[in-house]
Amino acid sequence: MKGPRGTQDLLPGVTEKWQYVEEKLKGLSKNYNYQEIRTPIFEHTELFQRGVGDTTDIVQKEMYTFTDKGDRSITLRPEGTASVVRSFVQHKLFGSPNQPVKLFYIGPMFRYERPQQGRMRQFVQYGVEALGSEDPAIDAEVIALAMSAYRELGLKSLKLVLNSLGDNESRNNHRKALIDHFSPVKDELCSDCQTRLEKNPLRILDCKKDRDHEAMATAPSILEFLNDYSRDYFDQVKAYLDAMEIPYVIDKNLVRGLDYYNHTAFEIMSDAAGFGAITTLSGGGRYNGLVQELGGPETPGIGFALSIERLLMALDAENIELPIDQSLDCYVIAFGDETKVKAASILQKLREAGVQADKDYQDKKMKAQFRAADRLKARFVLVLGEEELENNIIAVKNMETGDQENIGLNELISYIKGII
Amino acid sequence: MKGPRGTQDLLPGVTEKWQYVEEKLKGLSKNYNYQEIRTPIFEHTELFQRGVGDTTDIVQKEMYTFTDKGDRSITLRPEGTASVVRSFVQHKLFGSPNQPVKLFYIGPMFRYERPQQGRMRQFVQYGVEALGSEDPAIDAEVIALAMSAYRELGLKSLKLVLNSLGDNESRNNHRKALIDHFSPVKDELCSDCQTRLEKNPLRILDCKKDRDHEAMATAPSILEFLNDYSRDYFDQVKAYLDAMEIPYVIDKNLVRGLDYYNHTAFEIMSDAAGFGAITTLSGGGRYNGLVQELGGPETPGIGFALSIERLLMALDAENIELPIDQSLDCYVIAFGDETKVKAASILQKLREAGVQADKDYQDKKMKAQFRAADRLKARFVLVLGEEELENNIIAVKNMETGDQENIGLNELISYIKGII
Repeated sequence: MKGPRGTQDLLPGVTEKWQYVEEKLKGLSKNYNYQEIRTPIFEHTELFQRGVGDTTDIVQKEMYTFTDKGDRSITLRPEGTASVVRSFVQHKLFGSPNQPVKLFYIGPMFRYERPQQGRMRQFVQYGVEALGSEDPAIDAEVIALAMSAYRELGLKSLKLVLNSLGDNESRNNHRKALIDHFSPVKDELCSDCQTRLEKNPLRILDCKKDRDHEAMATAPSILEFLNDYSRDYFDQVKAYLDAMEIPYVIDKNLVRGLDYYNHTAFEIMSDAAGFGAITTLSGGGRYNGLVQELGGPETPGIGFALSIERLLMALDAENIELPIDQSLDCYVIAFGDETKVKAASILQKLREAGVQADKDYQDKKMKAQFRAADRLKARFVLVLGEEELENNIIAVKNMETGDQENIGLNELISYIKGII
Repeated sequence: MKGPRGTQDLLPGVTEKWQYVEEKLKGLSKNYNYQEIRTPIFEHTELFQRGVGDTTDIVQKEMYTFTDKGDRSITLRPEGTASVVRSFVQHKLFGSPNQPVKLFYIGPMFRYERPQQGRMRQFVQYGVEALGSEDPAIDAEVIALAMSAYRELGLKSLKLVLNSLGDNESRNNHRKALIDHFSPVKDELCSDCQTRLEKNPLRILDCKKDRDHEAMATAPSILEFLNDYSRDYFDQVKAYLDAMEIPYVIDKNLVRGLDYYNHTAFEIMSDAAGFGAITTLSGGGRYNGLVQELGGPETPGIGFALSIERLLMALDAENIELPIDQSLDCYVIAFGDETKVKAASILQKLREAGVQADKDYQDKKMKAQFRAADRLKARFVLVLGEEELENNIIAVKNMETGDQENIGLNELISYIKGII
């Protein structure tokens, strides 16, 4: 029996990397003063229809939607922002004295797509949301945090791509220009883009099928339609990034897949050689309309999300080894029938004192027990034979130096705590 | 819009407790040399029908089962053991040189039940599984680890309840005796128990509806039917627990809710005053038939799982405050238009140096910024005005003592790293 298609089991040897990365991300969040929020794995389907957008591929094609025993339509969350904003509204966090509310999350997301390298049906996202500020400095902060997540782990081949989608006025003017531009060639576009032309023409710029159509290269850019406020906002974001020494390139076709973005939009890509077809590591942007869309007061917001799977792929592509300690402090070897129970009690005392320790549970011969200690990278092996037990001592062998010493059982814990 | 019934959002102020507890549990796992495994949130439904048991309440009534877009029957995992064993078989971990394979997991589980205090439809379990050993010492180890999880966090009002379900021969003899005992009063039992009498009479002892029926008190105990091997095994488990100074009581009616248990079964309860109706904190036991049932070679196994929600409730019931530091290292205050960009760059340098730091993003007046620093429990406030900027210095105020000092901007990072 196998796990479901598009999911994976993370086994010992791999989970240590995940632990390391997740600890780093949590520490980074704390440095930037973002606090953790945990929302449920599933939500009412309506949340994503409203909060991600009815016209998106995610909602139209990729959701794990089902009916629960109470006849509610439930969906495994395909992304984190809608749930965080739902929670922000439900628990009235807009009333908290600390504004903006700065939150991070980390957990599994679900999209029914064709599985391929770097794209699983269950994948893990880390993301942040800052709700309650429309200061360009916080756009820069969120981008800086996203970049730090990769840099702190040692990644170097990174490209930050930036764009502005402008405010509603700018977007509406751009929208009209896009419709004028693409309508004459409507019949030559893919069927998805023909629908997009009516519902959300901006999304055409994102289409993988039509990307080589000649109308693409000449499409009007949002940057030409930014009004004064939007242009000034974008200029300030760039000035902050410059001051923070974070390099970026502008891509006027960067539009992001979700409906609710405005102003700042960004993606971080790996440009490491051999990284694979999907080079985007993370993306984010500003979504000033979303809180209101989900029933809250008008509240600006910005956030980003990254995939842990792709982060780990990027580490591999740059040959970065994470500094993970896989050693064990002590391995206890007992021989003779009477010693076994005593060994179990010693082991328990070591563990209760915070020492990482183990023993044999398969009745192995002494030689095989030493080999097991080696495989587990034990730093010290503690040997208790019948003679030692009689004399109330235990032999402590340093596996690195080969030195061996007899230690009184009463002093063992403090002795071990002193040397590890 | 609200989150689904029976689920909860964990918000800042609460998530810190979860982080603390989970870190403790991970550290504890490492002390006992258990390594993390992560399996998917959903599995093929068949896994739980076979691995939890067709006759259990979980499988019959409580699963979140649905059909995915590929027409597969999928179920959100209601517990962790079946998935871990499936993964153990799929990835042939029985072939690993390190035996027994000792694994832990932590993550959300899903059961469609009537929500009440201590019982959510989505809840988080920490659990361990040790696969590949039938040494009574490892039964004791798993129980010791479960007890340590609570003791390390400071819980004192704990009761460990222990029983043996024996091996197959013992169970079969007991089963016959139970059928003989309950058949004469079959019509007086609830409909569930009437089914259980045929399919799994042991489960009658666990019934909440029939618990006061007079036949219950006189029901034959499994302990009377243990054969020599089973009795000796149970005696050894008890001897190990005694040596490890872990007190327990025997409860001959402890049968656990799942089909696949044999030999050792245990539960840990809180007996803190006012803990509530559901006093069980965790439970576990031996399941020697499960690996084979799921397609692997004959492999003994034992494990346990605890609910983090109930662990936190138990901490509350015993008034235990976890030692969580919620302070912020630095809060940067800038005033004057030109200083803002410089403040953002200083903030970025602090964070990159591992300092927890924040600033205002709402154009607050200086006084309000100091109040914000207070609310965030900032230990130092860094004030950058136009005069400071001109002189390339920044004022550093110690919020505990009130002392203030001007520091050159070039030395700021090393100065701050020195005092925090």
